[in-house]
Amino acid sequence: MPNIIRASVVQACTAAYSLPDTLEKLHRLTRVAKDRDGAQLVVFPEAFIGGYPKMSSFGVVVGDRQPAGRDEFVRYYNAAIEIPSPAISRIESISQETDVFIVVGVIERDQGTLYCTAVFIDPNEGLVAKHRKLLPTALERVIWGQGDSSTLPVLTRTFDQGSAKGSSITAKLSAAICWENYMPLLRTFYYSQGTQIYCAPTVDARPEWQHSMAHIALEGRCFVLSACQYAEEKDYPPDHAVADASKRNPSNVMIAGGSVIISPLGKILAGPLRGGEGVLTADLDMDDVVRGKFDLDATGHYARPDIFQLKVAASRL
Amino acid sequence: MPNIIRASVVQACTAAYSLPDTLEKLHRLTRVAKDRDGAQLVVFPEAFIGGYPKMSSFGVVVGDRQPAGRDEFVRYYNAAIEIPSPAISRIESISQETDVFIVVGVIERDQGTLYCTAVFIDPNEGLVAKHRKLLPTALERVIWGQGDSSTLPVLTRTFDQGSAKGSSITAKLSAAICWENYMPLLRTFYYSQGTQIYCAPTVDARPEWQHSMAHIALEGRCFVLSACQYAEEKDYPPDHAVADASKRNPSNVMIAGGSVIISPLGKILAGPLRGGEGVLTADLDMDDVVRGKFDLDATGHYARPDIFQLKVAASRL
Amino acid sequence: MPNIIRASVVQACTAAYSLPDTLEKLHRLTRVAKDRDGAQLVVFPEAFIGGYPKMSSFGVVVGDRQPAGRDEFVRYYNAAIEIPSPAISRIESISQETDVFIVVGVIERDQGTLYCTAVFIDPNEGLVAKHRKLLPTALERVIWGQGDSSTLPVLTRTFDQGSAKGSSITAKLSAAICWENYMPLLRTFYYSQGTQIYCAPTVDARPEWQHSMAHIALEGRCFVLSACQYAEEKDYPPDHAVADASKRNPSNVMIAGGSVIISPLGKILAGPLRGGEGVLTADLDMDDVVRGKFDLDATGHYARPDIFQLKVAASRL
Amino acid sequence: MPNIIRASVVQACTAAYSLPDTLEKLHRLTRVAKDRDGAQLVVFPEAFIGGYPKMSSFGVVVGDRQPAGRDEFVRYYNAAIEIPSPAISRIESISQETDVFIVVGVIERDQGTLYCTAVFIDPNEGLVAKHRKLLPTALERVIWGQGDSSTLPVLTRTFDQGSAKGSSITAKLSAAICWENYMPLLRTFYYSQGTQIYCAPTVDARPEWQHSMAHIALEGRCFVLSACQYAEEKDYPPDHAVADASKRNPSNVMIAGGSVIISPLGKILAGPLRGGEGVLTADLDMDDVVRGKFDLDATGHYARPDIFQLKVAASRL
Amino acid sequence: MPNIIRASVVQACTAAYSLPDTLEKLHRLTRVAKDRDGAQLVVFPEAFIGGYPKMSSFGVVVGDRQPAGRDEFVRYYNAAIEIPSPAISRIESISQETDVFIVVGVIERDQGTLYCTAVFIDPNEGLVAKHRKLLPTALERVIWGQGDSSTLPVLTRTFDQGSAKGSSITAKLSAAICWENYMPLLRTFYYSQGTQIYCAPTVDARPEWQHSMAHIALEGRCFVLSACQYAEEKDYPPDHAVADASKRNPSNVMIAGGSVIISPLGKILAGPLRGGEGVLTADLDMDDVVRGKFDLDATGHYARPDIFQLKVAASRL
Amino acid sequence: MPNIIRASVVQACTAAYSLPDTLEKLHRLTRVAKDRDGAQLVVFPEAFIGGYPKMSSFGVVVGDRQPAGRDEFVRYYNAAIEIPSPAISRIESISQETDVFIVVGVIERDQGTLYCTAVFIDPNEGLVAKHRKLLPTALERVIWGQGDSSTLPVLTRTFDQGSAKGSSITAKLSAAICWENYMPLLRTFYYSQGTQIYCAPTVDARPEWQHSMAHIALEGRCFVLSACQYAEEKDYPPDHAVADASKRNPSNVMIAGGSVIISPLGKILAGPLRGGEGVLTADLDMDDVVRGKFDLDATGHYARPDIFQLKVAASRL
Repeated sequence: MPNIIRASVVQACTAAYSLPDTLEKLHRLTRVAKDRDGAQLVVFPEAFIGGYPKMSSFGVVVGDRQPAGRDEFVRYYNAAIEIPSPAISRIESISQETDVFIVVGVIERDQGTLYCTAVFIDPNEGLVAKHRKLLPTALERVIWGQGDSSTLPVLTRTFDQGSAKGSSITAKLSAAICWENYMPLLRTFYYSQGTQIYCAPTVDARPEWQHSMAHIALEGRCFVLSACQYAEEKDYPPDHAVADASKRNPSNVMIAGGSVIISPLGKILAGPLRGGEGVLTADLDMDDVVRGKFDLDATGHYARPDIFQLKVAASRL
Repeated sequence: MPNIIRASVVQACTAAYSLPDTLEKLHRLTRVAKDRDGAQLVVFPEAFIGGYPKMSSFGVVVGDRQPAGRDEFVRYYNAAIEIPSPAISRIESISQETDVFIVVGVIERDQGTLYCTAVFIDPNEGLVAKHRKLLPTALERVIWGQGDSSTLPVLTRTFDQGSAKGSSITAKLSAAICWENYMPLLRTFYYSQGTQIYCAPTVDARPEWQHSMAHIALEGRCFVLSACQYAEEKDYPPDHAVADASKRNPSNVMIAGGSVIISPLGKILAGPLRGGEGVLTADLDMDDVVRGKFDLDATGHYARPDIFQLKVAASRL
Repeated sequence: MPNIIRASVVQACTAAYSLPDTLEKLHRLTRVAKDRDGAQLVVFPEAFIGGYPKMSSFGVVVGDRQPAGRDEFVRYYNAAIEIPSPAISRIESISQETDVFIVVGVIERDQGTLYCTAVFIDPNEGLVAKHRKLLPTALERVIWGQGDSSTLPVLTRTFDQGSAKGSSITAKLSAAICWENYMPLLRTFYYSQGTQIYCAPTVDARPEWQHSMAHIALEGRCFVLSACQYAEEKDYPPDHAVADASKRNPSNVMIAGGSVIISPLGKILAGPLRGGEGVLTADLDMDDVVRGKFDLDATGHYARPDIFQLKVAASRL
Repeated sequence: MPNIIRASVVQACTAAYSLPDTLEKLHRLTRVAKDRDGAQLVVFPEAFIGGYPKMSSFGVVVGDRQPAGRDEFVRYYNAAIEIPSPAISRIESISQETDVFIVVGVIERDQGTLYCTAVFIDPNEGLVAKHRKLLPTALERVIWGQGDSSTLPVLTRTFDQGSAKGSSITAKLSAAICWENYMPLLRTFYYSQGTQIYCAPTVDARPEWQHSMAHIALEGRCFVLSACQYAEEKDYPPDHAVADASKRNPSNVMIAGGSVIISPLGKILAGPLRGGEGVLTADLDMDDVVRGKFDLDATGHYARPDIFQLKVAASRL
Repeated sequence: MPNIIRASVVQACTAAYSLPDTLEKLHRLTRVAKDRDGAQLVVFPEAFIGGYPKMSSFGVVVGDRQPAGRDEFVRYYNAAIEIPSPAISRIESISQETDVFIVVGVIERDQGTLYCTAVFIDPNEGLVAKHRKLLPTALERVIWGQGDSSTLPVLTRTFDQGSAKGSSITAKLSAAICWENYMPLLRTFYYSQGTQIYCAPTVDARPEWQHSMAHIALEGRCFVLSACQYAEEKDYPPDHAVADASKRNPSNVMIAGGSVIISPLGKILAGPLRGGEGVLTADLDMDDVVRGKFDLDATGHYARPDIFQLKVAASRL
Repeated sequence: MPNIIRASVVQACTAAYSLPDTLEKLHRLTRVAKDRDGAQLVVFPEAFIGGYPKMSSFGVVVGDRQPAGRDEFVRYYNAAIEIPSPAISRIESISQETDVFIVVGVIERDQGTLYCTAVFIDPNEGLVAKHRKLLPTALERVIWGQGDSSTLPVLTRTFDQGSAKGSSITAKLSAAICWENYMPLLRTFYYSQGTQIYCAPTVDARPEWQHSMAHIALEGRCFVLSACQYAEEKDYPPDHAVADASKRNPSNVMIAGGSVIISPLGKILAGPLRGGEGVLTADLDMDDVVRGKFDLDATGHYARPDIFQLKVAASRL
């Protein structure tokens, strides 16, 4: 009997700057994944809660910050959530109601700093972990702080085996957000902890992204679940920055999607999805991890710890 | 004025078990790259000298080795070369004659053990370095030993700037052979040494290989030059093992190629080449490395050395 | 009064791919050693738990892996055990029940990699150490990873002195698996740690094996307890690979045994056993170690540390 | 006889993107400080070598980078210097020629990443240390990497005592660049190392900057030498970004200066200079450090190490 | 709708050695802040209750203490208050009556030792916390003891939103007394706890004090409310020590004031007040904290916890 | 065409204490090997020149030495040879005459100390190297000194290929004397130098010796040529010590032989010879070394230099 977990990635955008609407959307899409596709695990994109202010400059140039940019930051800051908080409780309820394990990108507020975070919500235990993005990219470095090694969870979770109630499957899962996926040492750390379901919430919609997702699946011999936002101009406030202000059009694409599910041997199981929002679902045959590690186990028989060793610092000094 | 180096990858197979023929072939193909395309740097596939005994089992099963397999190994052993040796001298001559820097995969013999090695041959200085594959894959572990940290060169070389004789360009180059490319710590080491021209001699002809080459270019912000063998049954001795002995056909594909040149931003500059032998050539605009590192420098501003540190052992204790 | 420990080696095969049956067999044979022969220490062969897939190729040839081979690996992987795990607990119970110290070869699963491991189970303390084979041989390199210096235990254990309840004997014991016995530096390390009871679980049934066992006893001035599997075709699944598929016969010998117990002066105390399963038992007069070291102590008065020094790396960098 | 060191701060801008012109300017201004004012120590502003691209956005908005921005980065990258390099040698020559100790902000290039660095050049020993800015501010995070604890020098230097040739004064000096001065733990570290001449190269020309300089002098009981750039639009390339593109004017102020020298008791010794380039010089009576620490020694008698302890990590793990 | 808290600082002196008069004065000035200015929060100076015996030597020289000094201490001791005590109850009544949160400096008596303390009085909850000065300055060390880490509160308080009854604002506040403000680690601790309203009761009336207040606001991205005493000779007993006993004059200034309110971006919202007693009031737009932390969060995105870590000891055993 | 060298081991004893007779015997037996068997290489036993004084005690007990023993030593000393010396020249002549490479055990005299040495005599070059036994065994320690690392040659020699004059074979050879063969680090050193023809002159005639010879062949994947003395009482002076003086008999066996030639895969090619003197000869197929190293190369692919490293000291200063 195959060891199968059924998993979805959601391609959708934030109901920008509206926390209640976004939570409602998360509820609706989780129900789709569950009711239509039978998903046990659902991954939402980066910054799904809180929003990804694409094309904004926050009034920042080298050596100067404009007051209007500070005000935009105040709005963005207020749209972020604390962990825990009522918003987290709401996601816990959705998880419990649907019996779906949820991984979702949120903008986390901690004192005066924002973080780009992924939270892991279990149907039975609620919030079980969070991961803060270690390195924001380019202008993100102006609006988000850096995570540290205290939030690099690789969770061991148990799922029901689809056709056979009563028997269960154990899997390890983790998350790397957007360009963290270009950090080979972070990935190596995750591999070394045995990650099998590698969640990659993102807003990177370039075609090249697909190469990296496939490579990571192959390199880590793990399932890769990449959930990207799909957003059009109408999904942002009317005054939001755009690529070309002379061509504003509500249906202009802001973030083009590309969500995908890939097997440990590099086979595409679902997607990449382009052109709109949607939910992709696939069966993850956990034995494929073993089939893959037969000839490549990047932190096991295919490592050279005598030559290369990865040191990982404790979270603080 | 652009900083351009012109580089080729050769897709070709060994004239199996015939060293003189293979050296002659290397000479001919280097001339094609030079005379037809103006190449300054040429990368040949893994095991081009010595051969890749695809589909052979060397009479090895778990717990037993057949005498015929030992004899096949004797032939393979005798087809390998020492470094240095007359064969290396011959490649030095070809490099000098053509003024082409050559990177070529060879089967190296050292005492009783064979290694899968890439040698770096400079037109002026001759043999300047070698890299031994750190981890053979699957059955290769039966016929090849493991390299160590004493042969992980990242070379600094100077090339003439194409259109402007007299001015020159400095570039750093290294090599990772076949599935070494799935070793994130090895790659990280190469990135940390500043590799800009990342040579990937291989015999991996799966379509998935392309994902990893593109990913490495993006992750390392370096040019990736992957040279794969293309071989048919007729390129092997008549009694060589094949996938299905009932369907022997001289034109059956043994290694399907897929050589490719990719830019630091993940753009394909040439290839992937399939269906036959050939030489691919492209201009490498070295400023693209800087353009790429602007927003991603995996061992510089996009690293977290406070959390993750890569320790590299000296070659022996 | 002689300082005697009574020790057995078990020659038997895995109940292939059946963990419960194999544990039951281990229980039964430990009882034989204890009840029939009065053994205080029992050594089982290499891979007794998990099995030695002799003659399998796992669908691996140079440059290719067949899907069926991956599936065979999945089965083999699933038959392996983690350390600790319920299987280990079961062996601990058997050890406690029989008051026998057990050394047994197991296939250990750790993340995606398998290891060929020997576990040491104490009647009172349960699992006290494990040793992972440092270098798999030939095709084993495809299915097993490499151990490192963190699992090279030389244990100090105390045994009751047979005839004199109340008095006890202290002995040092270690294990080297199969062709690790051809690693002179590993052996030297064990000698330097004072090993007196040198356990050699194996599946090497060649007659030449006897020479090495005798040599090691002489060289190390230690008792050598070599436990080899004895297996016939009927002990493997019906579709298991065999040497000659045209001559399948349930009683064909797959692994021919050769278990043996040898004294520090090279005298054979029991065995070699051929032609079937069985339990060999002998009195180990620990004073023989001293008698032997009188004129040869390979890491003591018979060493030349001024010329040759063995450096042993810590388990990782 | 007073223990006096004569020190200057230079307020000037880069000859943008022209390394030779900027080095020439550094030469000229050092001569002014030496010949006109008798300076023994001169501090130049942040990014004096390499330039501070104020008002540039480098084509970066959240989630996107424009190719033109990458090209601007290539120009900026090529204008940066390595350490050491011929540019450093040139500064060493200037230092030697004038017998002036020079602290100057440079844009340092190391592999693909730029750093905002201050170098310390001794007349006799040449380059003796460098400090890399630990945390770039706002958009600087897109163009500069982060320093670490390996470049936090507090140097002990000996100067001639002005009026009394033959006798000498020892002083400790360090540098914190721009908003690093808002990092209380970095300052505490410098205080704890005994810094007496606290150099603050900057491009922060806000009036509020003066408060922080005075506070640091008081808190650290050290001389503060803050050297700021003064730049107008004409000092940048014609196509450089400006605050309001509709009001371009070569004499518009880009960076307004504010260089200042303050005593350990908070007294302003020279400056703040506004409205143009210039050289400020003052006598530093080193006994004032002692006078100030009489009632406040922030890492000595005015610390509470029983409550607060500052841990400083080694440069890497 | 702006998030505004209305806050006052009181510049006034103790009715020296008269507790009832001083409490009455506290009542009157709180009413002014409330009735005239609409204040929700009022900060009184250091040692407002108990007095600051400026210019006294308490008969202490190195190696000797005069009896008269001892007697002066007896008077000072008796003027101090215990916490809690009737005096505290009285302040609680004033707070409740006016609905004003009060922070006030008191001389606290605990066994035989006096402490320079700030108490926090809530209109609804009464005394909620106290902070004892960690390090008295200079001769203060003779009359006051040292606080410890058990009294470093950062309180979370809720205030009505001025124009909109029913909605409320949450703010965090703390206090550092006089030269504690020169302790960078104490400030860092407060920042790390999220302080937004940083109260600085003091008697430091030097002009340089303004620099530090502005710097702290900028560094901590918090509102700074510095309340200083204003006192003349007539406010002290006739025999109180003065700077120049030959020039006694009731209107000679003993403590010159300088109270001030500064925003998180370093803007002066009220004051500095000089030349007499008075009440300064300002609107604190709490979003300014977010606007400020956008580009500087000294213990968040602008910290380097990988390099510098502040350890804070638990309070004494 | 096979790569074959024809080699002999000579089993014979010294013509005790008679140098000329022994050299004559060496001449005669070399001719046998050459003329009868076609040998190209001949190995003589340990101490063939100079003699092995088996059963002598040299009058030594703990704490005392008898004069008679001293006299016996004088005789033994005088029977030894220097290197070079006329005796060596004589062997060189024999080698040249027969075109046989000779390895022979000699008692070497150097100043006042004797060494148990093996000399290597080339037909063309004469004496090319010597090896001094590193560790005498038991009472040997009273009569022989210790060698050091300056005499551990592994020689590269070229031999004619038997049937094909004009073509030649290169082989590496070395020697370990008697119980040196129980020194695993010495053997490892020889393996690491690539020894292929491992000469083992000895006087150890125990049956157990055969195990070690076979083991070394297997472990080192080299040919083992063990030449042992065969001696009876009549081969010693009449007054020479014997095991049981009451049973003196000229035909009593003093050293029982056991010379043997073994292949790299552990096959016995000739011997063991017992019961008398004699010459054993075998074809050494040098490809067997490669066949053997296919699956075991103890200092190549079957080593773990990351864990175990053998350091070899340079010879004495």
